[in-house]
Amino acid sequence: MDEPKQERAVQTRAAILRAAAEVFDEFGYTGASISKIMERAQVTQGGMYFHFKSKLGLAHAVLAHQQDFVHFPPQGVPGLQLLIDLNFFLARELQTNVLFRASVRLAVEQGDFGLRDDTAYQEWVDQFHDLLCAARERGELLPYVDEREFANVLVGAYSGVQVFSNIASGRADLQERLASMWRYLLPGLATPQTIAELRIPRDVQEAAA
Amino acid sequence: MDEPKQERAVQTRAAILRAAAEVFDEFGYTGASISKIMERAQVTQGGMYFHFKSKLGLAHAVLAHQQDFVHFPPQGVPGLQLLIDLNFFLARELQTNVLFRASVRLAVEQGDFGLRDDTAYQEWVDQFHDLLCAARERGELLPYVDEREFANVLVGAYSGVQVFSNIASGRADLQERLASMWRYLLPGLATPQTIAELRIPRDVQEAAA
Repeated sequence: MDEPKQERAVQTRAAILRAAAEVFDEFGYTGASISKIMERAQVTQGGMYFHFKSKLGLAHAVLAHQQDFVHFPPQGVPGLQLLIDLNFFLARELQTNVLFRASVRLAVEQGDFGLRDDTAYQEWVDQFHDLLCAARERGELLPYVDEREFANVLVGAYSGVQVFSNIASGRADLQERLASMWRYLLPGLATPQTIAELRIPRDVQEAAA
Repeated sequence: MDEPKQERAVQTRAAILRAAAEVFDEFGYTGASISKIMERAQVTQGGMYFHFKSKLGLAHAVLAHQQDFVHFPPQGVPGLQLLIDLNFFLARELQTNVLFRASVRLAVEQGDFGLRDDTAYQEWVDQFHDLLCAARERGELLPYVDEREFANVLVGAYSGVQVFSNIASGRADLQERLASMWRYLLPGLATPQTIAELRIPRDVQEAAA
């Protein structure tokens, strides 16, 4: 494929993924259709089938590319504060970023359309794990903490807290629920001195700042 | 309605709910159908429509009756140990009790078929809250713990840990993940003396014993 053609193919694929995410976010997997997505992406049937053969293939792509949909601006040194900041950044993204929200929704509801792919979960475990290892090097963690074990607990707990928040309040109370979760997790994770210095955003305004 | 007729109606309803749970558990909401459920329950179309008018109505009933599907045999005095035991009892039920498992699955995936009902979540918050209040009376909790806040965190975290375990291992590692979660939650919840006396089942055998 020559350069311009390849470039166009990449753009078309991105436009399709974005349109698919929007439609999945609005209608769920069951309520979405290839034709709705084609219309939203303004691509022809040929363009669609060159990239994706089925609604399931599209859902899988949106689910598996979760990391591409969020761009956390790195601020400060890697460690516990950055892990907490990333957690609250993701909460804001769930409220405002349709691509990320659709991907998380598909990751949670995938059982209903016959998928079982933990890629999206494992990639977050890896990211959280890296920040926990940095926290360990900075002397922020308690001696008995296993960085990978805690990363797994955090990804599981976070997933459930956001599902509960979504069903209870449409995610309006997500930051508040996250702050509560961190309040009870920190004493089993970090040294008292570290906890005293950490900043947990308490509400939406603060978290978005 | 005279007595025998009423009795029969109650039995038919229970048979339909059980069959619906089995079909939802096996095929998910999208893959389930009223006709599959009628066949499984061995009821006529008339019998079905007397009790439930739609697949969505059936899913809602299975989701909302979650508490009816699990019967925790109360052992010991209400407090933290009983809360932990209940958590591990529910893990075992998720692995073996099709009615409960289907109900939890529908509660998690409900967004995909257009429901938003947090009844099942709130009923667990209430149950966990009662046990936390008993723990408070027994002097097991740290001073700053808010029983209702912690109950909300626990229901959210538990939901997510079981979703992650289901996607990662078909729930084979659920007890292990639960033990990790409790390991990191306890220091922010209970007094050191209470923690030293608590028993956290570490694996499936122990949890099932």
